Amino acid sequence: MGSTYQTLFSQVADPVTSSGNKVTVVGVGQVGMACAFSILTQNVASELVLVDVVADKLKGEMMDLQHGLTFMKHARINASTDYAATANSRLCIVTAGARQKEGESRLSLVQRNTDIFKGIIPKLVECSPNTILLIVSNPVDILTYVAWKLSGLPKNRVIGSGTNLDSSRLRFLMSQRLNLSPTSCHGWIIGEHGDTSVAVWSGVNVAGVRLRDINPALGSDDDKENWEDIHRQVVQSAYEVIKLKGYTSWAIGLSVAALAQSILRNGYNVHAVSTLVKGQHDIDKDVFLSLPCVLGENGVTHIVKQPLTPEEKEMLHKSATLMAEVQSDLKL
Amino acid sequence: MGSTYQTLFSQVADPVTSSGNKVTVVGVGQVGMACAFSILTQNVASELVLVDVVADKLKGEMMDLQHGLTFMKHARINASTDYAATANSRLCIVTAGARQKEGESRLSLVQRNTDIFKGIIPKLVECSPNTILLIVSNPVDILTYVAWKLSGLPKNRVIGSGTNLDSSRLRFLMSQRLNLSPTSCHGWIIGEHGDTSVAVWSGVNVAGVRLRDINPALGSDDDKENWEDIHRQVVQSAYEVIKLKGYTSWAIGLSVAALAQSILRNGYNVHAVSTLVKGQHDIDKDVFLSLPCVLGENGVTHIVKQPLTPEEKEMLHKSATLMAEVQSDLKL
Amino acid sequence: MGSTYQTLFSQVADPVTSSGNKVTVVGVGQVGMACAFSILTQNVASELVLVDVVADKLKGEMMDLQHGLTFMKHARINASTDYAATANSRLCIVTAGARQKEGESRLSLVQRNTDIFKGIIPKLVECSPNTILLIVSNPVDILTYVAWKLSGLPKNRVIGSGTNLDSSRLRFLMSQRLNLSPTSCHGWIIGEHGDTSVAVWSGVNVAGVRLRDINPALGSDDDKENWEDIHRQVVQSAYEVIKLKGYTSWAIGLSVAALAQSILRNGYNVHAVSTLVKGQHDIDKDVFLSLPCVLGENGVTHIVKQPLTPEEKEMLHKSATLMAEVQSDLKL
Amino acid sequence: MGSTYQTLFSQVADPVTSSGNKVTVVGVGQVGMACAFSILTQNVASELVLVDVVADKLKGEMMDLQHGLTFMKHARINASTDYAATANSRLCIVTAGARQKEGESRLSLVQRNTDIFKGIIPKLVECSPNTILLIVSNPVDILTYVAWKLSGLPKNRVIGSGTNLDSSRLRFLMSQRLNLSPTSCHGWIIGEHGDTSVAVWSGVNVAGVRLRDINPALGSDDDKENWEDIHRQVVQSAYEVIKLKGYTSWAIGLSVAALAQSILRNGYNVHAVSTLVKGQHDIDKDVFLSLPCVLGENGVTHIVKQPLTPEEKEMLHKSATLMAEVQSDLKL
Repeated sequence: MGSTYQTLFSQVADPVTSSGNKVTVVGVGQVGMACAFSILTQNVASELVLVDVVADKLKGEMMDLQHGLTFMKHARINASTDYAATANSRLCIVTAGARQKEGESRLSLVQRNTDIFKGIIPKLVECSPNTILLIVSNPVDILTYVAWKLSGLPKNRVIGSGTNLDSSRLRFLMSQRLNLSPTSCHGWIIGEHGDTSVAVWSGVNVAGVRLRDINPALGSDDDKENWEDIHRQVVQSAYEVIKLKGYTSWAIGLSVAALAQSILRNGYNVHAVSTLVKGQHDIDKDVFLSLPCVLGENGVTHIVKQPLTPEEKEMLHKSATLMAEVQSDLKL
Repeated sequence: MGSTYQTLFSQVADPVTSSGNKVTVVGVGQVGMACAFSILTQNVASELVLVDVVADKLKGEMMDLQHGLTFMKHARINASTDYAATANSRLCIVTAGARQKEGESRLSLVQRNTDIFKGIIPKLVECSPNTILLIVSNPVDILTYVAWKLSGLPKNRVIGSGTNLDSSRLRFLMSQRLNLSPTSCHGWIIGEHGDTSVAVWSGVNVAGVRLRDINPALGSDDDKENWEDIHRQVVQSAYEVIKLKGYTSWAIGLSVAALAQSILRNGYNVHAVSTLVKGQHDIDKDVFLSLPCVLGENGVTHIVKQPLTPEEKEMLHKSATLMAEVQSDLKL
Repeated sequence: MGSTYQTLFSQVADPVTSSGNKVTVVGVGQVGMACAFSILTQNVASELVLVDVVADKLKGEMMDLQHGLTFMKHARINASTDYAATANSRLCIVTAGARQKEGESRLSLVQRNTDIFKGIIPKLVECSPNTILLIVSNPVDILTYVAWKLSGLPKNRVIGSGTNLDSSRLRFLMSQRLNLSPTSCHGWIIGEHGDTSVAVWSGVNVAGVRLRDINPALGSDDDKENWEDIHRQVVQSAYEVIKLKGYTSWAIGLSVAALAQSILRNGYNVHAVSTLVKGQHDIDKDVFLSLPCVLGENGVTHIVKQPLTPEEKEMLHKSATLMAEVQSDLKL
Repeated sequence: MGSTYQTLFSQVADPVTSSGNKVTVVGVGQVGMACAFSILTQNVASELVLVDVVADKLKGEMMDLQHGLTFMKHARINASTDYAATANSRLCIVTAGARQKEGESRLSLVQRNTDIFKGIIPKLVECSPNTILLIVSNPVDILTYVAWKLSGLPKNRVIGSGTNLDSSRLRFLMSQRLNLSPTSCHGWIIGEHGDTSVAVWSGVNVAGVRLRDINPALGSDDDKENWEDIHRQVVQSAYEVIKLKGYTSWAIGLSVAALAQSILRNGYNVHAVSTLVKGQHDIDKDVFLSLPCVLGENGVTHIVKQPLTPEEKEMLHKSATLMAEVQSDLKL
């Protein structure tokens, strides 16, 4: 620092460089950057590190965020291809991985992304042994299992973004039907983030009024209003948005920022996220699926035990079996 | 709406669909979407309309934003290829246009984008005769002139995003040199958004302490600390970020959201934006260049008259002359 | 304005003084000021007018808010004993009135406050014929009726803050029992804001799981966990806080800011607010009680028809009868 | 917790109760509560503890804040007369003390409040040895010295709220003269928070334009526009607001929340706060006065060395001498 600095300031004490709420985002593709930007603009963290293998893109994204710092609350933004820069992160968000292509199922991506995770997860945990891992890459449920295995972390500290986004999509579609704000529409999608997700119609409500108490057929094949159609639209959403714009970004970014906030603020909020479900709903396999979970600084501390219909339970079991099969073929 | 709706609600009065702070964003490329997303997450408007000619991309972006509504304060999001959807916007932000390519000067884009504007500006003004136009497409100063001419609006209601972003970049680079928050670093870049911008070193200060009072050579060729280098970096920034990541998005999005907020909240804040400068600093041409302007619900209400050195004034005049020449060749 | 002003600025256009989202708060006691401060810090409005009959106190509060403007997003703050200053308010919040004393029932205040309202409501409506009235003064249900009668406004535009606060208190107490965030605890209190309010236990849920499906006695006298006790605590809350600190302020302020936000942003959110309930749940009297309502720019547009038990319905009818009796004795 | 809890949740891991950004506010008078409420609504901390000797009032304020939690981002709120509840606070804000009476000088309060501090400061430091102390009680400069002496903490971790508020008042009054947003008006008041504060007119600027370059007499007795009058109004403000409403609260609350944010987010922002000024501007006494300081997680890390006129320097020295005299009479 030059003499202007020396003349301008009188030093009183050494500044501290850490803020205590450092977040790392791995992967600066459209999803990773939407997560990073949402976290900054929603004021979730004051220290953000980006990591990627593509140094040019990485530096460009860092600079672009830094150039906007004047318009946000204070944050430190750093980027590096070296994981050393991520040391002591409280939360590591992993968005890296091959992207789901138009028409591709999430499951088909799995071995490719497992191999990528082998180069990421152990390094993250080595640099931040007390971190929480939040996995966003798809297929998210299996990759969260992979991250759990590769990390050696306790199950509560490895979380998949799961059906938090699917639930938000359901609530938006409900809001369109009911001409209400999405935040006044309540409903949960659980299970696999993707084709076999389960809409828990018994819990869908407005102001505590169960829609099924009004329309007992709600969500079933007999429903003349065909509410299950909005669940079908949720399942199709990812495919449709990818088809229309090439990828999804904004909604997943905001969804992840909401999860990050509950974790960093120790919020004890309930979100549908992918967690180890062995022992839940009679599932006996080491698989990760989304259930409503209480999130805080220690990750997932509780799972909400929803009463499920036999059909809903069966769908969960089918997903679990499918996950377990795919996992058994994986080379970890 | 089905019978569940009928059973759930008792209607008291008709809902109103307009919110009184509608914003339109034209162009859903990376810049337009970063503007839209910043406006939503920074809580600037509660009604947003996207317009583009590419219907698929447009619908995909709208859906992706809508799917995240549960995580934001309430807003209505709409999209259309038809300008009728923009009716009664208080602010129209234009980001459409051919994108600056790697190494391309902003000026070379001009006729291409003028022709695009002919299909946009008159329609916007027809649908929202009382709107303010905020032009972001590059070369922004000339295109703001073009929009002014095409719109027939008074000069105070046609604004270019101009050097608001360049000033933010300068403040970030200052903050790196001084190890301070960017919001505690004050400095202004005026003139052309681009290669011939002017850093007003006489106003650069921290806590009201002029850096030039400490280092009289600040910003000059004789400056041993070479502060002009950070101005050079600002000029290079757009080129460098485009080279590294392919485009710029986050910082311009946040910059535009800040301008939108001053306008929609009638904030009377000072921002460096592109405005008709005829009569300022002895400029006698109908050109738009950035100067510090007071922004509110009526657009630019005042220009701050900075005392400039002869060199700074000469640079402004050079830019003005260049603009005027380019404009004289334009087919409007 | 002096010559420094003239030298500093070049005027381009006249500034506009109105922002389009003006809010008036009548009464600058602890409740009124907590409402005003919450609205400013929660960024709900950018133009605020305070009205009171005590000119000194009024000016002091205005100055104190203005002195903090540097630390908030831009807003204009004005205060006057003259209602002319409130012209064109989109929302008028009335907190004026004699304060509930320790141990005093809300009903005993009623004629005193009716007389005060005669000096307030007609003036507000005269200055802002299109406004929405949000009544906070107690007893809020009867005073909302009084304001409706005195104003001549349609029923959808006269709203009482009602049990929005009671519901928030219930959710906080639930959150303590369940070790969850209050925003993840869902439950509604309806009816009279005060001693005879009704907790709708059938709607109490976490993640869509009805607590009554787990504990069928929930809220009844047979409930071994005694959940009705937290409803009793809600009813006692106002008395207890008044006993402990002399008045209530923060929670009602935040509650009102949330209602104001739904109205000003045209949010279509559901809140328990006091509305004209004639025709709801077989009530045949012109009384105001809280039910879950959809709020937007046109006030209450819909009422959510909750299925109530015979006991819950009976309690509502008792409240309605009591209200009607009190109202029949009022001198309007 | 009852069986509903057991049936609803499946525990995965123990929740953590600390959030890492705990703030304690000592004193729940109007100032303390305005600080607490500003910190909550501005989203500065997610864990807040209130301490006071008046148990009833304390409990009432805690309950009132808790009842509003549904309307804010998640936070934990606790209160206790026992300092054990404050353990591991990152920041302790002290507002306790006898209140300045109408017409009373801040200095006359000093011994009374020193005695009160003897019962507060050592307990705070014992429970949170790594905390930063932010003193708000008046006379703030001397009480910050007292807190420094009583605490044994290094000077960078004992800070007085000082003239951060006075500077905000100056900027508001400037904004009224110039018809601008206060955040676009820049000016600094340093020295004693109170009667002998110093307005540094050389630094007063808009968009980097020094008003003194336009009006060289600015702030002097020869100034025909009489700008010094707004400094006089700043000095009178506290007295006037106290006279009008009985106390000051909102602006000091927001001012303190801004300081808290810079500290907790490690913001490196510049604020005028009271710091040990020995060695600054040739002051050779152990006194605390406000100067522009860089604030972060380590407290005051740098002081900005403003060039002062001989008159400004002399005023600082007078204040320093007065402080030292008062301090020499104090019984610590």
